[in-house]
Amino acid sequence: MNLSEKIRSIPDFPKKGIIFKDITTLLGDGAALRQAVSEMKERFSDVEIDAVVGIESRGFIFAGILAHEWGVAMVPVRKSGKLPYQTIRETYALEYGTDSLEMHVDAVKKDQKALVVDDLLATGGTAAAVIRLVERLDARVVGCCFLIELDFLQGRKKIESYRVESLVHVE
Amino acid sequence: MNLSEKIRSIPDFPKKGIIFKDITTLLGDGAALRQAVSEMKERFSDVEIDAVVGIESRGFIFAGILAHEWGVAMVPVRKSGKLPYQTIRETYALEYGTDSLEMHVDAVKKDQKALVVDDLLATGGTAAAVIRLVERLDARVVGCCFLIELDFLQGRKKIESYRVESLVHVE
Repeated sequence: MNLSEKIRSIPDFPKKGIIFKDITTLLGDGAALRQAVSEMKERFSDVEIDAVVGIESRGFIFAGILAHEWGVAMVPVRKSGKLPYQTIRETYALEYGTDSLEMHVDAVKKDQKALVVDDLLATGGTAAAVIRLVERLDARVVGCCFLIELDFLQGRKKIESYRVESLVHVE
Repeated sequence: MNLSEKIRSIPDFPKKGIIFKDITTLLGDGAALRQAVSEMKERFSDVEIDAVVGIESRGFIFAGILAHEWGVAMVPVRKSGKLPYQTIRETYALEYGTDSLEMHVDAVKKDQKALVVDDLLATGGTAAAVIRLVERLDARVVGCCFLIELDFLQGRKKIESYRVESLVHVE
């Protein structure tokens, strides 16, 4: 199965000129979801992983499944103000302005090996912020895994010292 | 393992007087996460399910894992304006004001059997809105599954004609 055919393109969302990659069509196909997860597991089958870090909110879906498959921790990274316990925060640039992400201070432990997971690698700003969160807690990022990578935005350059695996590339 | 011991209580979050049930401690324990999923599967092992409907955003974690385990569709229900394709919307009451949830019009098909999943059953307003969304698309709700139920809020009464299963009860 070609996973890219399971992803729907929505023109002019969230604003004019942007072609949004809609993964709900892939999620809605049980066989496609299983194949995506199987490919993600395969890409990191040679790596020891203690925690799968999922980025709110679509990243939660794949991070949850991978953590369950491997029997390891699932760590949610959320927008500011959502996590109830003591947090650390990283701010990153958007096209206009900034946004912030938070992680609980006890989400990962020293020297743990973390895999960062999201549905989409775009400019890389979000992934880079999540990597900083993990490393501020003295844990190690062993890689970043995405369902889709928008190659033309060159987000990979922002996280180039890390292993990056994406199942579907949009040129 | 007693799952309720894996859930952390945070006093005065998000505001004074509320004791927030923090599930990140359960998610952060691979064995606890697996046990929770195993118990959820067991509760609905006698039911045919075509789609697992997850409520943004913590509901995505358990809905994704269950859909993957059963090899069926995972359907995300999101806050207004987040889903890119054509949607239907339901509004529900909050303590002050209202909020809205959306589902893609092609998220479930006629006569499909859907399980509604979230981390928490509180007042039941959210779950009732999601049930209305599923039924407006002529699909059937076979049950609702929660990690935690706040019994004292009596949310179960709002969805009493449906099968409701919660792993942890807070009296």
